[in-house]
Amino acid sequence: MSSKYGKTLEISVFGQSHGKAIGVNIDGLPSGEEIDIEKLYEFMGRRAPGKSDFATKRSEADLPVFLSGIENGKTCGFPICAIIENKDTRSTDYAGLSKTPRPSHADYTALLRYGESVDLRGGGHFSGRLTAPLCIAGGIAKQILERRGIYIGAQILSVGKENGEKFPLYPSKELFDETAKKELPTVNDECGKKMAEVIRLAAKDADSVGAKIECAIIGLPAGIGSPMFDGIENRIAQAIFGIPAVKGIEFGAGFESAEMLGSENNDPFTVKDGVIVTETNNCGGILGGISNGMPIVFTTAFKPTPSIGKEQRTVDVKTMENTTVTVKGRHDPCIAVRAVPVVEAVAATAILDMLLEESEVI
Amino acid sequence: MSSKYGKTLEISVFGQSHGKAIGVNIDGLPSGEEIDIEKLYEFMGRRAPGKSDFATKRSEADLPVFLSGIENGKTCGFPICAIIENKDTRSTDYAGLSKTPRPSHADYTALLRYGESVDLRGGGHFSGRLTAPLCIAGGIAKQILERRGIYIGAQILSVGKENGEKFPLYPSKELFDETAKKELPTVNDECGKKMAEVIRLAAKDADSVGAKIECAIIGLPAGIGSPMFDGIENRIAQAIFGIPAVKGIEFGAGFESAEMLGSENNDPFTVKDGVIVTETNNCGGILGGISNGMPIVFTTAFKPTPSIGKEQRTVDVKTMENTTVTVKGRHDPCIAVRAVPVVEAVAATAILDMLLEESEVI
Amino acid sequence: MSSKYGKTLEISVFGQSHGKAIGVNIDGLPSGEEIDIEKLYEFMGRRAPGKSDFATKRSEADLPVFLSGIENGKTCGFPICAIIENKDTRSTDYAGLSKTPRPSHADYTALLRYGESVDLRGGGHFSGRLTAPLCIAGGIAKQILERRGIYIGAQILSVGKENGEKFPLYPSKELFDETAKKELPTVNDECGKKMAEVIRLAAKDADSVGAKIECAIIGLPAGIGSPMFDGIENRIAQAIFGIPAVKGIEFGAGFESAEMLGSENNDPFTVKDGVIVTETNNCGGILGGISNGMPIVFTTAFKPTPSIGKEQRTVDVKTMENTTVTVKGRHDPCIAVRAVPVVEAVAATAILDMLLEESEVI
Amino acid sequence: MSSKYGKTLEISVFGQSHGKAIGVNIDGLPSGEEIDIEKLYEFMGRRAPGKSDFATKRSEADLPVFLSGIENGKTCGFPICAIIENKDTRSTDYAGLSKTPRPSHADYTALLRYGESVDLRGGGHFSGRLTAPLCIAGGIAKQILERRGIYIGAQILSVGKENGEKFPLYPSKELFDETAKKELPTVNDECGKKMAEVIRLAAKDADSVGAKIECAIIGLPAGIGSPMFDGIENRIAQAIFGIPAVKGIEFGAGFESAEMLGSENNDPFTVKDGVIVTETNNCGGILGGISNGMPIVFTTAFKPTPSIGKEQRTVDVKTMENTTVTVKGRHDPCIAVRAVPVVEAVAATAILDMLLEESEVI
Repeated sequence: MSSKYGKTLEISVFGQSHGKAIGVNIDGLPSGEEIDIEKLYEFMGRRAPGKSDFATKRSEADLPVFLSGIENGKTCGFPICAIIENKDTRSTDYAGLSKTPRPSHADYTALLRYGESVDLRGGGHFSGRLTAPLCIAGGIAKQILERRGIYIGAQILSVGKENGEKFPLYPSKELFDETAKKELPTVNDECGKKMAEVIRLAAKDADSVGAKIECAIIGLPAGIGSPMFDGIENRIAQAIFGIPAVKGIEFGAGFESAEMLGSENNDPFTVKDGVIVTETNNCGGILGGISNGMPIVFTTAFKPTPSIGKEQRTVDVKTMENTTVTVKGRHDPCIAVRAVPVVEAVAATAILDMLLEESEVI
Repeated sequence: MSSKYGKTLEISVFGQSHGKAIGVNIDGLPSGEEIDIEKLYEFMGRRAPGKSDFATKRSEADLPVFLSGIENGKTCGFPICAIIENKDTRSTDYAGLSKTPRPSHADYTALLRYGESVDLRGGGHFSGRLTAPLCIAGGIAKQILERRGIYIGAQILSVGKENGEKFPLYPSKELFDETAKKELPTVNDECGKKMAEVIRLAAKDADSVGAKIECAIIGLPAGIGSPMFDGIENRIAQAIFGIPAVKGIEFGAGFESAEMLGSENNDPFTVKDGVIVTETNNCGGILGGISNGMPIVFTTAFKPTPSIGKEQRTVDVKTMENTTVTVKGRHDPCIAVRAVPVVEAVAATAILDMLLEESEVI
Repeated sequence: MSSKYGKTLEISVFGQSHGKAIGVNIDGLPSGEEIDIEKLYEFMGRRAPGKSDFATKRSEADLPVFLSGIENGKTCGFPICAIIENKDTRSTDYAGLSKTPRPSHADYTALLRYGESVDLRGGGHFSGRLTAPLCIAGGIAKQILERRGIYIGAQILSVGKENGEKFPLYPSKELFDETAKKELPTVNDECGKKMAEVIRLAAKDADSVGAKIECAIIGLPAGIGSPMFDGIENRIAQAIFGIPAVKGIEFGAGFESAEMLGSENNDPFTVKDGVIVTETNNCGGILGGISNGMPIVFTTAFKPTPSIGKEQRTVDVKTMENTTVTVKGRHDPCIAVRAVPVVEAVAATAILDMLLEESEVI
Repeated sequence: MSSKYGKTLEISVFGQSHGKAIGVNIDGLPSGEEIDIEKLYEFMGRRAPGKSDFATKRSEADLPVFLSGIENGKTCGFPICAIIENKDTRSTDYAGLSKTPRPSHADYTALLRYGESVDLRGGGHFSGRLTAPLCIAGGIAKQILERRGIYIGAQILSVGKENGEKFPLYPSKELFDETAKKELPTVNDECGKKMAEVIRLAAKDADSVGAKIECAIIGLPAGIGSPMFDGIENRIAQAIFGIPAVKGIEFGAGFESAEMLGSENNDPFTVKDGVIVTETNNCGGILGGISNGMPIVFTTAFKPTPSIGKEQRTVDVKTMENTTVTVKGRHDPCIAVRAVPVVEAVAATAILDMLLEESEVI
């Protein structure tokens, strides 16, 4: 099932960008969990378009309607279905794109996979808009995790070649909250200004730019996870690649570890405040797929938004002749900016799914 | 299930490093597929220890015995169980390690997860030795894929800070075969010599070093895969993190994409020899989770072998006092070298699993 | 996941009887399949209430709205979400029932399982109303199967102690169509009249009555299915017990086989019109979990509707004192009558799921 | 996956009757559980052949060897693989059977499903011998359940048309133990004698006879399970049809419920010794898929052993001409007798799987 994630907590996303509605079915949540809908709306607002200079001006009425599973502000044990109606959709912008597929979009592969009946208006089921239902599920998961002292935060770590500052060894809930409020959510404001400039330049040039997002999970007890195929890395990686435009993921020092000596990369154990911790966190809080009590840290690579205003080379799939395509409409110059809460959301569902599976914890 | 991977083709790995045997159960293969056991042994030989200066001298009789599923050299439709007996095991080397966990090993997290009954001799179920069963499954999958014109090759792309040369835009089966035969499997021999020197230096210093492995899959038809959670990236990533020591994965340009402009990163479509291809392959052959007909390319980051001969800081988990540990025994100075066929094996099972799911292809 | 069924074709049902809406998410259907919505409405009409003397008078606007997955009358490859709004709901009828649970309803077990937050109005997620979404999924599956020459029909085989006539050895599509049109869908009209009388008597006495439903699947190619846990029996049985009130299932001669000698029960093979068939069909078309080309035949036992107008003994779960409860509102005197298309629907999704898994067939 | 069962506790059965070995891989058991191997052997002895007049004389060395997952008599958290070598196999008895398939065996369907490469010697992977690995998994599950006060017992309820006596409303562990020791495990010895006579008559006449097995689970807490597709009935039914020769299953009054009025079938709640129970147990301890605290009770229908000594009509699949086949070798005259512990085993794995999923209980 391509649009489904999770084992005990199962998320099924549905909808096409320009269909009647998009939404999510969430099965497996415990009963009796309070869900603060205002707080959820606020969380979802972080990915909403039109909020900043760095996001598409296209407006969306992205507030979800809950059809089932929540009564009197609490989960009732049954599957939650939440939908978001599609409104401001300008389908004519997309006419003919399945004939001349846009470079680095899924137009061409979708056509091969699903045939002529595929609905590609606005990207169809491949659209970044489908990350809104992920935020519904993840926003709910975050609330349930927070009640158990587990907090998740993310930030823009770099834009193009402009690097920011990593989260500290022990990031705090306060740091997460503070960062989330920023127009460009990043720890170091000086770096943030430079990154913003890179985005503005790309936008001005009818271009787009890639970025990295760092995510940290604090408060997760040690001993959660499993070896081999069901560890924290496997679960998070599988889920994170469900976000359009993600092309890479690394845990802890990640690709830097590949350049280190063992004596540099190994994280020595030590006792701090009566608890076993590691002096460094090159492993990103995960050993053998299992949490070691340190913050879980991972970084994801987002490619630049493939929709750019420049003319691009493509092929007419009917005539098999080389031609060009120019993508119209308004698009995010840096898709990663709005993806920050999406990364948090996906991490939250992955972590809650693992916790629900292991009886000792929840 | 932590030790299980796949949906239609299901791989279940079992065994501890110093138990009676390790092995794999493979369910879902088509019936009537010829399996060349000699060729499989040869493939498995590529990951066997003791073959080169870069690998542990510990010898293993790693040849599998097939208990079921293969008769007269062919799959018979039923689950294949293959086992490898454990012989050369020196358990005393590991005595006491659960008391003073080795940095960046799973000793500590395993103890928390499984309690005192956990079998950690030789790394238990977390041991790199468990990649041998992965090679059984993957070696079989490779043979079935090759019969359909799909070839998988991998190489060491870097060791420490010493970089090699990437696979060309269109790697060939011959390049894969040639590379696989080398003591240090890497495309560019000049780079290979420098990498080998880095490994020798680390070994000499009782240390270890990290590395990157690049893997390419050629011949995969366009149109394979799915959007969101079940695309090629999701499937391969989930599986690859099942290999011990992997800390990152990227597809195509991956983390470099995050530094690019859209106009640089987008892969223009063009017609070549009557077929639609892309001029560049920054997307690694995958758009919207679906193959576009170009080679699938991904790179994984391997951390340095955590077992090093130097004294390291750790904690005595009984007394909660800081102490040190020195890991005895022989260990790979660069675990990635022997992992090259493992990456191919895991990629093969992931790709075959996807193909078996989609009726048009196999 | 309690509300999910299937492996390649996945059905997720959501909603509570008296919530905003109920519905179903259908993932894994092939793209480009024409869906005749009128025909689907007609199929769903067979389970709608208020149609006959044997069904509750409660009216439902049970026509589904498709939010995604179908465009221009065809599946577009993406998940289908269809919802049915809840309208005619009289929640006051159910007030206090979680305090004094109704015998043989799920009130008591739901309370234990989900706690005080459980939404039990109208039976909540346990309601027979949730079979409407099953009919959406199953109605679509039936259309796809019929296009491939596979037809599914069901009939009331008995009501109380009044038995009908079994389907013939080779039932036809015409027989299925003809039976489906009847107010009490049963092959033999004489028997049907007697069954109807049993239902009327029960209704008159504020009571209800159980029944058996026989289902047959014709046109399924031989060689579909698998041994052990994934055979046709396993799949259909798992799904059929998803219909509320089902308490038993048997394939072919089923429980009668348990009374036979091997020489009576064994189905001899013979050649008929150039095809291998069996002379009898005691095995119900399934050997070793795999179809043998004969009609698949199974019978399910439906208990009497637990909601009856008579006073019943129960317990006040707060005071732990014995008391009584009288169920108000209108209820089906024989729930099985409206369940006939539901059995067909569930069988259709189970069979289509199996076919989609096996590449040779679809 | 046809040979796999379970969600949190996953059982994968492998092997063919006349291959090198059969076995089972068990993943998901908690760590640190003591496993009494002697007690397991004793349990497995109950299904071993050659023990009574009612079973095949073919001897088997059915004692399992544990390759992984158990160290020092305890589970160590990792997958358990246990194998049984195949020894006393007389393959010549089966020569040619794929050419003239035996009625009501899987020979014909297996040939269609898996092609010429299928290994049908001794029934291959379809053989009743594969129930031995089920007993390994189930025997272990039973020990873990018993430590938590949950006991499972089964008995022969009928043989042919000769009926026994049902378990009482509250069966006890002692009754289970006592029944298990009998040559023909059935509650009422008078009935047992008559049943035994039926089996002897069938055997004498080179025939076989069907039977019913009743199974009860006591001590399962109320509130375990889920509505719709993941309830106790769904789970047990899916698993039970994994036992060769099972053709039907019913819970509680089952098919009798279909003949009752609601007022007869409904189980009134009442308080007994301070606990809420039901006066009758027509629902078999399950309401809405969830346990209500009463014993779980189900009955399965076993068809007569299809292997009988009489000549039977079949088809030569090469020439497509009608012919006959006579099955040689020794066979159980009533396969259900040896299946009694298998039913217990399968029920145990299903129940333990459900318990492991629900955090409150284990």
